[in-house]
Amino acid sequence: MDRTGIKVFAPASVGNAAVGFDTLGFALEKPGDEIIVRFRDKPGLEITRITGAKGKLPYDPEKNTAGVAALRTLEHIGETGRGIEMEIHKKMPFGSGLGSSAASAVAGAMAINELFHKRVTKRELLPFAMQGEQIASGGYHADNVAPSMLGGMIMVCDNPTLDVHRLPLIHGLYATVIYPHVEILTKDARSILSDTIPLKKHIEQSANLAGWLIGMFRGDVDLLQKYLKDVIIEPQRAQLIPHFYEAKEAAMNVGAMGCSISGAGPSIFALSKNSLIAEDVGEAFKRVYTNAKIEHTVYVSPINHEGAILC
Amino acid sequence: MDRTGIKVFAPASVGNAAVGFDTLGFALEKPGDEIIVRFRDKPGLEITRITGAKGKLPYDPEKNTAGVAALRTLEHIGETGRGIEMEIHKKMPFGSGLGSSAASAVAGAMAINELFHKRVTKRELLPFAMQGEQIASGGYHADNVAPSMLGGMIMVCDNPTLDVHRLPLIHGLYATVIYPHVEILTKDARSILSDTIPLKKHIEQSANLAGWLIGMFRGDVDLLQKYLKDVIIEPQRAQLIPHFYEAKEAAMNVGAMGCSISGAGPSIFALSKNSLIAEDVGEAFKRVYTNAKIEHTVYVSPINHEGAILC
Repeated sequence: MDRTGIKVFAPASVGNAAVGFDTLGFALEKPGDEIIVRFRDKPGLEITRITGAKGKLPYDPEKNTAGVAALRTLEHIGETGRGIEMEIHKKMPFGSGLGSSAASAVAGAMAINELFHKRVTKRELLPFAMQGEQIASGGYHADNVAPSMLGGMIMVCDNPTLDVHRLPLIHGLYATVIYPHVEILTKDARSILSDTIPLKKHIEQSANLAGWLIGMFRGDVDLLQKYLKDVIIEPQRAQLIPHFYEAKEAAMNVGAMGCSISGAGPSIFALSKNSLIAEDVGEAFKRVYTNAKIEHTVYVSPINHEGAILC
Repeated sequence: MDRTGIKVFAPASVGNAAVGFDTLGFALEKPGDEIIVRFRDKPGLEITRITGAKGKLPYDPEKNTAGVAALRTLEHIGETGRGIEMEIHKKMPFGSGLGSSAASAVAGAMAINELFHKRVTKRELLPFAMQGEQIASGGYHADNVAPSMLGGMIMVCDNPTLDVHRLPLIHGLYATVIYPHVEILTKDARSILSDTIPLKKHIEQSANLAGWLIGMFRGDVDLLQKYLKDVIIEPQRAQLIPHFYEAKEAAMNVGAMGCSISGAGPSIFALSKNSLIAEDVGEAFKRVYTNAKIEHTVYVSPINHEGAILC
């Protein structure tokens, strides 16, 4: 019996990405979660260790995002009888709007698949990771799970069937994310959203998404800059994030392409056409929250092209 | 003084095109409108002849779509003092949902520009054609004007600034259109639309548009077929068009990629991956309306790549 085990990493991701509420997301290089799995004699999946979660994550696999993703994967490949130990090392914040539960779920499904020598493709793992994430988020939209698993910038054309597509990436595209250490629960961020929107806003925002997609396919930075905006969700959620508009203005002032809320917040993301601007955006973000005396963490990262990986 | 004049043709177009309400449209090869302009001694623009309009179009240039488009173009190029005669030959039905007013407006602007040896580009003519079309439609969305002027399948990413983009076209893509001879006024078709839509429908329809755009850029017919649908406008307007769902089912049964309402209706369009299927769709459409004893006209056409042309 091999006791060394398999270690996988699944990255954080930016869901919604301004133009595609519940449908567009991209992965970051860091932060992310690590999961280690190994065989053991006693049958069944057991979570034996969780670090970095401040006691907030359940050890019961059926109640744990990574556990559920792992169990559903085991069922799919017909290996539920096997004895497996799982260690979960949270290396990113909860409730940050950076796809923390998606990263854990992706890592859970990925770890099992790697332990059994890649029985299925990463894409086939998506439904199992989705079922894991659902435990935490309540919703079923793959704008975090799909990029965390597959890497790149992913358009989810159909959530129910998980019809996901990776967009061609502009060279140099860089993300800056700031996580201000304030608490927003995804469910609260959902509940403040109006169930209906004006038809006019639908037309405008659909066209923004179209402009963004055309820009990505053409490699047209001007188009990306023009259309990276959200006229529907951001105006409703911005109030939940202290100093959001100040941070956004600071990012735009130093040359970001666009800036909006990452997932349900409170993290804020900006995209920039190169890494130098992305670093400037990081400094600009920091100044805002340092002045406001709000603790924060900044990540500057290219778009992650690989998604979840075996370490 | 050259008395022979300049003749231009501007084609009909399918606005909305299922996935892009007010923002996506494509041009047909036929039908369309013809406008003839020539210099004369008496200063000012005069509409001297209108055919094919059953007396429904005004001769006052400021009240006529083609006239307004021509006048605004003349102002832009600084030639308002010139004496010009205009003949308008409507060769397509009014109120059909095929961009009849857009075609006239485009032809009006185009004719003037050709008469003065192309002072500006076709794209620069768009705002003047838009102002012409506005007289008839009341709205300001370029999903008919832009394809009628420029040809191809056009995504209007921003209506106010007329930021329009031509999508790469799939080889063989063919349109079938049936115009059942029933009357729907654009303003009525607008007024039955709800001002608000469910957020869920926005998410779903935006993703349909995204799937369609990705399909066009990749040349992926399966994607096009999957996402050519409208879950917002079609369900509201279908009731205005007798036998709409029957016609749609008939089109889908013979292999159309998708089928929906052209513009504000009553015309119905289908797109097919080749001309043979498009012809079958035409026959299927005809059977439905022949059985229903409703007069109709069918057009089978490739996507028009050129838009308005000098004849």
